[in-house]
Amino acid sequence: MAKELTPRSENYSQWYNDLVMKADLAEQSDVRGCMVIKPYGYAIWEKIQRTLDDRFKETGVQNAYFPLLIPKSFLSREAEHVEGFAKECAVVTHYRLKTNATHDGVVVDPDARLEEELIIRPTSETIIWNTYKNWIHSYRDLPILCNQWCNVMRWEMRTRLFLRTAEFLWQEGHTAHATREEAEARAKQMLEIYADVVENVMAIPVIKGVKSETERFAGALDTYTIEALMQDGKALQSGTSHFLGQNFGKAFDVQFVDQNNQLQYAWATSWGVSTRLMGALIMTHSDDNGLVLPPNLAPIQVVIVPIYKKEEELAAISAKVAEIMPRLKAKGISVKFDDNDKKKPGWKFAEYELKGIPVRLAIGPRDLENNSAEVARRDTLTKEQLSLDGIEEKIVALLADIQQNIYKKALDYRNEHITKVDTYDEFKRVLTEKGGFVLAPWDGTPETEEQIKNETKATIRCVPFGNPLEDGVDMITGKPSKQRVLFAISY
Amino acid sequence: MAKELTPRSENYSQWYNDLVMKADLAEQSDVRGCMVIKPYGYAIWEKIQRTLDDRFKETGVQNAYFPLLIPKSFLSREAEHVEGFAKECAVVTHYRLKTNATHDGVVVDPDARLEEELIIRPTSETIIWNTYKNWIHSYRDLPILCNQWCNVMRWEMRTRLFLRTAEFLWQEGHTAHATREEAEARAKQMLEIYADVVENVMAIPVIKGVKSETERFAGALDTYTIEALMQDGKALQSGTSHFLGQNFGKAFDVQFVDQNNQLQYAWATSWGVSTRLMGALIMTHSDDNGLVLPPNLAPIQVVIVPIYKKEEELAAISAKVAEIMPRLKAKGISVKFDDNDKKKPGWKFAEYELKGIPVRLAIGPRDLENNSAEVARRDTLTKEQLSLDGIEEKIVALLADIQQNIYKKALDYRNEHITKVDTYDEFKRVLTEKGGFVLAPWDGTPETEEQIKNETKATIRCVPFGNPLEDGVDMITGKPSKQRVLFAISY
Repeated sequence: MAKELTPRSENYSQWYNDLVMKADLAEQSDVRGCMVIKPYGYAIWEKIQRTLDDRFKETGVQNAYFPLLIPKSFLSREAEHVEGFAKECAVVTHYRLKTNATHDGVVVDPDARLEEELIIRPTSETIIWNTYKNWIHSYRDLPILCNQWCNVMRWEMRTRLFLRTAEFLWQEGHTAHATREEAEARAKQMLEIYADVVENVMAIPVIKGVKSETERFAGALDTYTIEALMQDGKALQSGTSHFLGQNFGKAFDVQFVDQNNQLQYAWATSWGVSTRLMGALIMTHSDDNGLVLPPNLAPIQVVIVPIYKKEEELAAISAKVAEIMPRLKAKGISVKFDDNDKKKPGWKFAEYELKGIPVRLAIGPRDLENNSAEVARRDTLTKEQLSLDGIEEKIVALLADIQQNIYKKALDYRNEHITKVDTYDEFKRVLTEKGGFVLAPWDGTPETEEQIKNETKATIRCVPFGNPLEDGVDMITGKPSKQRVLFAISY
Repeated sequence: MAKELTPRSENYSQWYNDLVMKADLAEQSDVRGCMVIKPYGYAIWEKIQRTLDDRFKETGVQNAYFPLLIPKSFLSREAEHVEGFAKECAVVTHYRLKTNATHDGVVVDPDARLEEELIIRPTSETIIWNTYKNWIHSYRDLPILCNQWCNVMRWEMRTRLFLRTAEFLWQEGHTAHATREEAEARAKQMLEIYADVVENVMAIPVIKGVKSETERFAGALDTYTIEALMQDGKALQSGTSHFLGQNFGKAFDVQFVDQNNQLQYAWATSWGVSTRLMGALIMTHSDDNGLVLPPNLAPIQVVIVPIYKKEEELAAISAKVAEIMPRLKAKGISVKFDDNDKKKPGWKFAEYELKGIPVRLAIGPRDLENNSAEVARRDTLTKEQLSLDGIEEKIVALLADIQQNIYKKALDYRNEHITKVDTYDEFKRVLTEKGGFVLAPWDGTPETEEQIKNETKATIRCVPFGNPLEDGVDMITGKPSKQRVLFAISY
């Protein structure tokens, strides 16, 4: 078959690319590092968006929109931000084209040079805090809880669809608060929302924790993270929430009069998830037949395929399906009847497996006689014959079971791939032979962290929330370690 | 009061700016020509978006996402497109910054110059048709019905919030078809959807029609438009849908094998509406007290303001409100109870008038005794005392009446401002003294159109659909005219 994927065991990275392209999720564009998100991929992203957006709004967050372009000088305002942030940015220097001399093309008009270059936003703390300066005067103006859904650009040299692209879509929340406590609580609250959606809707288990100083967002006092484990044993940072202290308040002079009539700098958080979540989704659940989608996220949850030779048979099946479809839809199930007569059932079966549709019903003349259908589930690839009586109730239960099953499968895999080690040899052996997360003692210094990264490519993914304190010895320096931290090689 | 607006009669343009800023809809950013859409403005835009998006999807359209940046050379591929399209574009020439010599700022890294400059999309026909080339091989691949919600940039020299900004948000639909007929029908279908949403949700009456050759989108064979009339007598183009023929199919070599096994170029449409609709909304309905929102679009439809002196009074009112709110919400009404004790009722009344909340309920101790409320409607600024028994039914009816009333008011104004003229003197007098649309005979030549534009600033807004043929004489050239066309001075 034309649509076969490279098996994971043969080449995981190629399998991923094959899947993304053949399941019509995304493709490379002719613009370096920028992807086209295809309708099927975008429909899944829209479901992620809608879920997150609803949850944000329940906590009082409002959407807004800030400019795409940021004056170059803004980036220098917060010293740590500019120092730590990657400088691979798209730079706008001119604002006009003109027809060329031979009248068959366009050239950049040299007379239309900007006085100050503009940067396509890699993230929007600077432009947003420059705006907040005018919004915040008194404690009564706080908190401000804004989010924006937008595109951002980081000129990555090596790109991979969804995981690392020059342009990507995301949401970035930016809040301003009167007190440190409130800002810290908000940063943690948003991480909990991310964890909830990623675990319960996307069925991806995550470890919540705090980043080491080295891995923190540039300009943050604390970065909270959710870390997921992919099937190849690599970790994927799936969402981060930053407590920014007063750094941006000071850099952009955002002061307010507090309840005691004192001037204070505002406290900040920012938090974001991106189309990278699509990569996490694909690499957590899918198999060599294609995508496996959690029912809570599948744009189409059930597909019905008629099996027939004669037109009368199709007509009889269609009549039956016309009776079943409204019963399924009434239960909130999204269902598609594929009666396209240009494709054979076998082709359709493979296609819907590739696209990860959770449940497939096949109905032929024999099934009609028995008032039943062959029901196949995508996650286990198993089939059973079910009566069409009360089929809607059975499908509801089946979808819930699939949702739970794929989460459990991912959770079991993840839990089997958290290994405690005490020595550097063990550490390296686990990384090479088993992969996954490694819990190892650490002396708490950036130098040791750096050495481990250079020698093994593993980084500290986080210090998990509620991590037990445990006296130990650093694997490398032999210095005291207060707790094990979570290492992994990551995307 | 601090929030008072400049009256329309004094300075319409200043009134508009005051309203946009003071009602918290949008503001200028520090990036030239780029606006910040504030949460309240964005909430209205989201309702417009959601409504349109649902309608698009009902017709089979799917969302997707294409790159922000377009290689410069793509713009030259479709000759008419590049010739006619404004060349005021933001140009990306570099992809990296670096720390400056004094380590206190960033400069553009001269070594990171792009081989080919990239343009921030002013519209996406070129990049999308370059992508469609790989998607379309057979008539079985057609139609393709994609839409994207995104930001675009056109480097406008004179900007006005929502109406004309360098960056704006819009949706752009791009469809590909096997036949001319199907593409033309789709272009018209999407215009009908725009007209439906703008008239029935936004309560803005529009005239549907086709653009003259001069006013067509660059690269289109036909541009369909909806034209609305603002309170100052100027027209505002509120949405366009283009039948692009095979121009982009040919420019990007998008060919398919048809049912007779012949190679054909694909037929195209594109269609868009933008945040400009926010400008149309404001300028159609609002008054000197602020925004007037159609209930179908208002993020908050009903606000309840307690009138009290003592805490016990507030407690009693709050208890009553707690009983009313769920009854209103159960009817699908969005309602807010403003019990903020730092603001006086008078301040709140003015604030909610400014923000265009359709219905205000004021409840004081006397009202409680009578089991009633003072109900004020924003559109007419009238008040009546209503019993709280079955208040939810009355509010539902009231909201429907307001929706209808503001549409009718705008429609009456628009109809009173369509004037038939036969001579150029009359034409000029109407434009100067009355404003609005002018139906005048035209010889059909671009030259006459150009002369009229230069001398009066009026342009042909459209030839209305179903326009009656009528033998006449061109106002200027005295040549025969086959029909009157719709002129106006426009935004």
